[in-house]
Amino acid sequence: MLFFTQCFGAVLDLIHLRFQHYKAKRVFSAAGQLVCVVNPTHSLKYAPTLCATAQTSTEQGILPPCHHHEAEHDPQLVPCMCPLFSCPWEGHLEVVVSHLRQTHHINILQGAEIVFLATDMHLPAPTDWIIMHSCLGHQFLLVLRKQEKYEGHPQFFATMMLIGTPTQADNFTYRLELNRNQRRLKWEATPRSVLECVDSVISDGDCLVLNTSLAQLFSDNGSLAIGIAITTSKVHSSEAEM
Amino acid sequence: MLFFTQCFGAVLDLIHLRFQHYKAKRVFSAAGQLVCVVNPTHSLKYAPTLCATAQTSTEQGILPPCHHHEAEHDPQLVPCMCPLFSCPWEGHLEVVVSHLRQTHHINILQGAEIVFLATDMHLPAPTDWIIMHSCLGHQFLLVLRKQEKYEGHPQFFATMMLIGTPTQADNFTYRLELNRNQRRLKWEATPRSVLECVDSVISDGDCLVLNTSLAQLFSDNGSLAIGIAITTSKVHSSEAEM
Repeated sequence: MLFFTQCFGAVLDLIHLRFQHYKAKRVFSAAGQLVCVVNPTHSLKYAPTLCATAQTSTEQGILPPCHHHEAEHDPQLVPCMCPLFSCPWEGHLEVVVSHLRQTHHINILQGAEIVFLATDMHLPAPTDWIIMHSCLGHQFLLVLRKQEKYEGHPQFFATMMLIGTPTQADNFTYRLELNRNQRRLKWEATPRSVLECVDSVISDGDCLVLNTSLAQLFSDNGSLAIGIAITTSKVHSSEAEM
Repeated sequence: MLFFTQCFGAVLDLIHLRFQHYKAKRVFSAAGQLVCVVNPTHSLKYAPTLCATAQTSTEQGILPPCHHHEAEHDPQLVPCMCPLFSCPWEGHLEVVVSHLRQTHHINILQGAEIVFLATDMHLPAPTDWIIMHSCLGHQFLLVLRKQEKYEGHPQFFATMMLIGTPTQADNFTYRLELNRNQRRLKWEATPRSVLECVDSVISDGDCLVLNTSLAQLFSDNGSLAIGIAITTSKVHSSEAEM
């Protein structure tokens, strides 16, 4: 009997160790899909001035008004895409990925379909969950933001942006999917370019929007799993032409 | 030349007549799908007291608290499901359909997949768009409501209810789909029973929720087309058991 008890203890220890290993990696595979655990980013240094005056971003690759002085010199200059870091960095499209990885330690994941597992959904607004996604030869940025548009009523906004130009972004379609408790919510759209402002996309509400009660229904133990898939939208456009 | 002009005029007249005919019927078929034009119902006699005290409806077929005095006698008694009519009617499940048709002139449509075309989305809140849907041997009620949860910020809430018991409702899955402007939003869930209160489903936000900007993106000329499909969910539950 003692033998069995010890065996059971050893198995439990192994499971615990394996769990710790997963926690450390923060990326693991479940049911054939790559699951990425994304920790929240909460900052008191929230700088809404960065793009506060930005109107609906245009599709012509023009930077938001707050960057017009830069746009006159170089329309490819991108402000730092970590909205809550109030990072003063600005750079060319080609170095955005390395800046986000090196300065802000944002993970980059490979694969056409991944699961974004946002932890600690209960944290107060404003909070961001950010990850990069490498797929189909391009890099995308997924931003999940908890924000209070109406005081006392936090909402969740999720959008995907291409680290590329608006013209390149038009070639893709992204899908965000929530699936739990006999409910399923899918959002499909063309990604915006990071040359447009993530703040204006979210303030326009042109993204997946969840109120707190829906977010709770889709959450498991304080974590929200969002399935992400990216496809090329060329098939759709040729269908539309037919 | 005059001949061609007159021919063109005659064709235009024919198109106009056909359009008038469609408008009169308010139900027509587009691309093989049944499209139902649903006019809004706006009432100043909004009676939030009807279910104002109702909490999240239970799955056990218990009526909302405001009807407990009735529930003691007959748990199958249903208040009138036209929320903005402040209709004092109450009746058994079996006669809900005939009451909605005869007293409130709500259309009933046949078919597994239909398109619900809500007109005049610009009308101020509170406004309802209601239709009945007959499918798979049962009748369902689709309610689209424009409501101001936060003053000055109207939102749209869409849900489907079974004119039947909660146990019967568990056998179905409904899907609402919006598709326009390179964006697609899908909501899938188990319908609630009309024995639960539509007001509490909407106030809980456990339904398809659209802010005004998203509703505008999905609207065409002030009308919002919602694709509706109902399936039996028995396949899903057997899959879950496997």
